Amino acid sequence: MPIRFKTDLIPAVVQDRTSGEVLMVGYMNQEAYRKTAETGRVTFYSRSRRKLWTKGESSGHWLKVREIRIDCDEDTLLALVDLQGPGTCHLGYRSCFFRKMTPEGAEVIAPRVFDPEKVYEKPASKGEPI
Amino acid sequence: MPIRFKTDLIPAVVQDRTSGEVLMVGYMNQEAYRKTAETGRVTFYSRSRRKLWTKGESSGHWLKVREIRIDCDEDTLLALVDLQGPGTCHLGYRSCFFRKMTPEGAEVIAPRVFDPEKVYEKPASKGEPI
Repeated sequence: MPIRFKTDLIPAVVQDRTSGEVLMVGYMNQEAYRKTAETGRVTFYSRSRRKLWTKGESSGHWLKVREIRIDCDEDTLLALVDLQGPGTCHLGYRSCFFRKMTPEGAEVIAPRVFDPEKVYEKPASKGEPI
Repeated sequence: MPIRFKTDLIPAVVQDRTSGEVLMVGYMNQEAYRKTAETGRVTFYSRSRRKLWTKGESSGHWLKVREIRIDCDEDTLLALVDLQGPGTCHLGYRSCFFRKMTPEGAEVIAPRVFDPEKVYEKPASKGEPI
C-alpha cells in the first residue's frame, strides 16, 4: 500500500455500511492496516496491550471490511463493514456509542443485544477485551 | 458535565445525522466539549495550533450539533450534526473521507462541492485551515 500514515498510530472509525451506524473507533498502525486489508477483518493495534488484535477474536463478532477510506490529512481511516454477530461493544451493545450526553451525564439510548458474560467467558478474553 | 474524559484529548467523530455520512474526525478536550455543548457548534482543540477552533469560523460551514454520544471506554465522542453549508472538508468535499483505499493508492470517490480557494480566501484562513 503506497500511502504512509502521517503518524504511527491513527484512529480508525468503523461504520456499518448498511445502517450507517458508527460502531466503534480503534487505532491502526501500518501493520494493523495491512492485516486488515489482507484478511478482510478489521484489525487494530491495542495501545494498552501493545499488540495487534483482530476484533472478534474473543467474541466471534468479526467486522468484515467492505471498503476503507482515508481522510484529507491522511491521519484517520474510515472502515465500512458488515458486522458479523449481534454487536460490536464488549459491554453487549451493537455500537460502542450506546449513550448520549445530557446535562445530567451519559444516558443509555440503545438496548443490550447480547450478554457479555457469556460471549467473553473464554479464557482468551480475560483482562481487557478491547 | 459530570463525565471526565479518560485522557486530555479524545477523538470526536462528526456524522451527518440525516445521511449518516461520516464527515470528519477532530479532537476535543474538556474545554472544546464544553464550548460545543454551550454554543451548539462543533468546536475542536487543534493539536498543531494548540488552541480551540470552531469548525466553520473560516468557511462559514458550521456543524450544528444535534446530539453527542460517548463510547463505552469514555475516550471517543460521536457528534450527530446538521452541516450548514456545502461541505466539511477544507479541500472542497462534503466529507473529509472522499478517497477510498485501493491496492494502487487512494482513489477519489466523491465530487468537489465547493472551491476552497474562494471559501478560504479570507485572511483568517491563511496557514492551516484545519
